Amino acid sequence: MSASPTYDSAQLAACATAIADAAREFAALGWTPATSSNFSMRLDDAHVAITVSGRDKGRLGADDIMVVDMQDRPVGTDLRPSAETALHTQIYRRFPDTRAVLHTHSRTQSVASRLFGKEGRVRLQGWELQKAISGHTSHESTLDIPVFPNTQHMPELTARIDAWLDTGRPLHAYLIDGHGLYAWGRSMDEARRHLEALEFLLGCELDLRRLSS
Amino acid sequence: MSASPTYDSAQLAACATAIADAAREFAALGWTPATSSNFSMRLDDAHVAITVSGRDKGRLGADDIMVVDMQDRPVGTDLRPSAETALHTQIYRRFPDTRAVLHTHSRTQSVASRLFGKEGRVRLQGWELQKAISGHTSHESTLDIPVFPNTQHMPELTARIDAWLDTGRPLHAYLIDGHGLYAWGRSMDEARRHLEALEFLLGCELDLRRLSS
Amino acid sequence: MSASPTYDSAQLAACATAIADAAREFAALGWTPATSSNFSMRLDDAHVAITVSGRDKGRLGADDIMVVDMQDRPVGTDLRPSAETALHTQIYRRFPDTRAVLHTHSRTQSVASRLFGKEGRVRLQGWELQKAISGHTSHESTLDIPVFPNTQHMPELTARIDAWLDTGRPLHAYLIDGHGLYAWGRSMDEARRHLEALEFLLGCELDLRRLSS
Amino acid sequence: MSASPTYDSAQLAACATAIADAAREFAALGWTPATSSNFSMRLDDAHVAITVSGRDKGRLGADDIMVVDMQDRPVGTDLRPSAETALHTQIYRRFPDTRAVLHTHSRTQSVASRLFGKEGRVRLQGWELQKAISGHTSHESTLDIPVFPNTQHMPELTARIDAWLDTGRPLHAYLIDGHGLYAWGRSMDEARRHLEALEFLLGCELDLRRLSS
Repeated sequence: MSASPTYDSAQLAACATAIADAAREFAALGWTPATSSNFSMRLDDAHVAITVSGRDKGRLGADDIMVVDMQDRPVGTDLRPSAETALHTQIYRRFPDTRAVLHTHSRTQSVASRLFGKEGRVRLQGWELQKAISGHTSHESTLDIPVFPNTQHMPELTARIDAWLDTGRPLHAYLIDGHGLYAWGRSMDEARRHLEALEFLLGCELDLRRLSS
Repeated sequence: MSASPTYDSAQLAACATAIADAAREFAALGWTPATSSNFSMRLDDAHVAITVSGRDKGRLGADDIMVVDMQDRPVGTDLRPSAETALHTQIYRRFPDTRAVLHTHSRTQSVASRLFGKEGRVRLQGWELQKAISGHTSHESTLDIPVFPNTQHMPELTARIDAWLDTGRPLHAYLIDGHGLYAWGRSMDEARRHLEALEFLLGCELDLRRLSS
Repeated sequence: MSASPTYDSAQLAACATAIADAAREFAALGWTPATSSNFSMRLDDAHVAITVSGRDKGRLGADDIMVVDMQDRPVGTDLRPSAETALHTQIYRRFPDTRAVLHTHSRTQSVASRLFGKEGRVRLQGWELQKAISGHTSHESTLDIPVFPNTQHMPELTARIDAWLDTGRPLHAYLIDGHGLYAWGRSMDEARRHLEALEFLLGCELDLRRLSS
Repeated sequence: MSASPTYDSAQLAACATAIADAAREFAALGWTPATSSNFSMRLDDAHVAITVSGRDKGRLGADDIMVVDMQDRPVGTDLRPSAETALHTQIYRRFPDTRAVLHTHSRTQSVASRLFGKEGRVRLQGWELQKAISGHTSHESTLDIPVFPNTQHMPELTARIDAWLDTGRPLHAYLIDGHGLYAWGRSMDEARRHLEALEFLLGCELDLRRLSS
């Protein structure tokens, strides 16, 4: 059942362009293999622009971006949004100043999620690039990225993320085991900076582990 | 001895373009080193468009694609098809809805084939991207990719693949030891998605093994 | 407080172009993740052109380069220079013939800095490419790249670098622990050659260590 | 002292283009770091077109290619040829049907040369891509790539290579320890296919060793 479109269509067009530009660059880096990954931007308090399920992320056009409301329902379209739409809207609901959510699926992210899955988090310490995460001003801080167990049942996953948030611990991004990374920001630029920094730092951690064993 | 051409030449042209486009992208990723690899598409029940032997896969043109029948005989041309043509036609014969077969030769594929050659298969489990393989709907399924011993004698290799298929086990793709990967699909898009997902997953498995030792 | 601009503005424009060109190529190689890294060129004895803090290094324009004096003060602008400007001016003060300073933040550099941080230096020996460092004419020479502990307090870092230089030991480049590499040269070309050679050699050392363990 | 130019200048132009094209592609792959590497083609029995010393291999123009005779003397120019010119002319003298010699300096080549330097050779066996080396028709053959100790004194190096050849053992390419690879062929295409195959196979060997330890 689709509601009438009440969002700003010019803003949708701008978001679709920003999403397609980002996705094309991530695809070129190999972070969106085999039509995986999904991306979204907040249009307003009630609407989110998000990638349609199953499209090639290196070649997104305006037709590959659709609108959902904060309960994951398509708005003004019969297209099917990504199966993981609930993870995007959860972030927008819990973080009112978040404007962009990026989910990628790089080899580094997938491998790190498996390797650190049992510990339930990746602990980053001593890296200058932690400062790329908003609110972090020193390499001496500790940056924990939780790894949640994977499931094909979204309510189970959102419940785990809510449980983490309800403890009051900071959450800048998270991994899903055997899967990929979710990162976000108060603008597409900030979200991209967070994603790029975390991809880099996870790669560094894997390298250090290989070299220290 | 070449039979008279009875296939649709417009369809051949479309397939040649689709093959050249795919091959160019694979070459840019380093998956077709030193004129290795070969690619094909089904034209109809009796004909297959396939790459001519020995060409640079990054620069394929219409002249680099030829037609063979299902018994590997050139049709309407004196060109020599890939030495591994029999592996392509076997897939088309055994899987009537397959429309594209892709054989690449990436470093990850070659190394994985050597590493898992003794076990005779790579077992993939717990990876979200297994869902990119048609018919797989969960990371909890098991996806086995057999590794067949290499030989320069094609009938020996097709016999081994027939033997696997005759047991009724599923076959979505296979590796040849010290060589590369064969993957396929009901369309070029599906075949590419399968290839891209398996290249990614084999890379993840190698990384995990490096990190867990 | 900004002093009146007394530098050659045509030279500033030429330097800005040279910096932007170099930065774009480094960004494409992944050496400047998440707006990290900074680059400068000497304009004259009293002025340095340097990247403005926080800009995307893959897309630098004339507006992203500013002028500072040798005491790190902005000249003719209210823009904020990189937090690490003091490291650039120190090199220009200590090496009067240096004309370009490049600071990048590649994964190889970050990982090498952590791995060799305790030893305080990376010792390079037996590599032909050591000859790319000016003054080195044989693979048989020894090339030491110090690793200084990271700190967010620049005077502490410049004091450590001064202390190294005051011992009279050669200094062609240095790493900062958990951070990245500083390299320089008597021209942008020489600085780039040094940076490229050291990135390569650090990568080789990490590979050898992985393979020899 | 430069002799009068007696070679075919149209052929020189064609060779310069072929060398520049190949070099640009190798540079993009990172195989020619920091102005390392050199490339040549035979013009006739007495002349070789070769890269001028110290140029950026990603941006070679006609002015970056010069002519030498078979005794390494510049012909019709005052430019200085690569310090390793003697290694090129040796191959042309010893292999009369060789028309192109390629020397690159990739990270894989440098690391493999150090790792296998003590054994004096890399032994390749069981890889399908060995068939890319002319004369090899099966993965079951053995392909030995010698690793010669590095020296800045060229006559020492050419003597070692002559000694290998004088034993009658086949030589398709060689590594120099801590340095890079020399490969060649009866045409630029064959030389490139040999280089590309060996870069791939050395990378596979390093990966297998990492994974088998």
